[in-house]
Amino acid sequence: MDQWLVIVLRMNDSTQRRAPSDRTTVRRIPKRAHYDRKTIHDILDEAFACHVGFVAEGQPFVIPAVYARIGETLYLHGAVASRMLKCAGGAALCVTVTLIDGLVLARSAFHHSMNYRSVVVLGHGQLVTDRDETLAALRALIEHMAPGRSKVVRAPNDKELAATAVVALSLEEASAKVRVGPPIDDEEDFALECWAGVIPIALTASDAVVDQRVSASATPPRDLLAMRRSKVPL
Amino acid sequence: MDQWLVIVLRMNDSTQRRAPSDRTTVRRIPKRAHYDRKTIHDILDEAFACHVGFVAEGQPFVIPAVYARIGETLYLHGAVASRMLKCAGGAALCVTVTLIDGLVLARSAFHHSMNYRSVVVLGHGQLVTDRDETLAALRALIEHMAPGRSKVVRAPNDKELAATAVVALSLEEASAKVRVGPPIDDEEDFALECWAGVIPIALTASDAVVDQRVSASATPPRDLLAMRRSKVPL
Repeated sequence: MDQWLVIVLRMNDSTQRRAPSDRTTVRRIPKRAHYDRKTIHDILDEAFACHVGFVAEGQPFVIPAVYARIGETLYLHGAVASRMLKCAGGAALCVTVTLIDGLVLARSAFHHSMNYRSVVVLGHGQLVTDRDETLAALRALIEHMAPGRSKVVRAPNDKELAATAVVALSLEEASAKVRVGPPIDDEEDFALECWAGVIPIALTASDAVVDQRVSASATPPRDLLAMRRSKVPL
Repeated sequence: MDQWLVIVLRMNDSTQRRAPSDRTTVRRIPKRAHYDRKTIHDILDEAFACHVGFVAEGQPFVIPAVYARIGETLYLHGAVASRMLKCAGGAALCVTVTLIDGLVLARSAFHHSMNYRSVVVLGHGQLVTDRDETLAALRALIEHMAPGRSKVVRAPNDKELAATAVVALSLEEASAKVRVGPPIDDEEDFALECWAGVIPIALTASDAVVDQRVSASATPPRDLLAMRRSKVPL
């Protein structure tokens, strides 16, 4: 219960300054908090993986997973046999997405930091049972990873659909936290000889490694080769 | 309780094939599981941030944090006022570290995947009260972010130490999960025209952004400029 506690206020405009609930209110360094939809959506759309938190017999578990967003809903998926997915349907969840943007090297150890953008979503998972919603979620998962790709791959068949569980989580209780900019040193430390600044870091793609059995006439996804999803200001 | 459940077996050699506890046993796709110390240490040492899971009033929370490893202990830190750190001392925690290594583009939607390396650590946080251990942990946190830097920055003073809480978590109950390699398609899908392969992705540093008030004679940390921590095989 670090930066968050109770009571729901709807998020409904893009300039909202207030948290959707008391428990999603950022308490540590509140100036880094963002509750507007655009900030939250942009972070969710840029990252590849989330961390799903759930509780089983009092023990918290945090599992990495892929996800996709459709409007105000986040979708997770997994094998029907997966206990995370069994836990996720109906259970209290916390899904967190974090982008690391830079190492912030200050003149003092104490003021070292990271530039980052993160979103925390609290809520209850809902097992998706509607076939159309399931198919839309699975398409969105592929599109989230590689835009345009759902049109060129073989769609899921009935056996694959039967083996796949999809869980929906509303973005109603979401908040973002963002740090940007240079190190903030104490005034007396600016005189130190020590170098200070930011080392930007971002997830970057390198050349595709083609599968050995790929058809000779298949076209590689060129736009992905130059992919650099991170567009954060420093 | 996805891939994990109870009973402790010590991890004590680098080729261990068994989980340190039943609850850390990877259940989904067990061939991806690793329990040897080298795999676990390498992942922890390469990543910059972890996701800390804790439970408050039945609700799971997952918060991104920096961390460092010394031997078989993971250290987290934060403001003494932080509720996460208050929760972390003595509480059941799950700390998860994930490196995304590639987008795995298969010929079928179903077999799309990610190459990744992740570590899940279960245990109880221990608030560090010893001054020497606190200082060592804070040094390790700086070194983890930027090797060599703890020697050139101003060390924490008493006021800063009083404001900082450090929590230790044993790596006794840790497991790793790793996916490498190309997409694994169904035999009948290999005939499809669709391109397939892996797009490697890694956290990559770009040119340092020097702080405006830096001393003209300060030397930038050159080794960091070319930093590319990910060295994963494809």
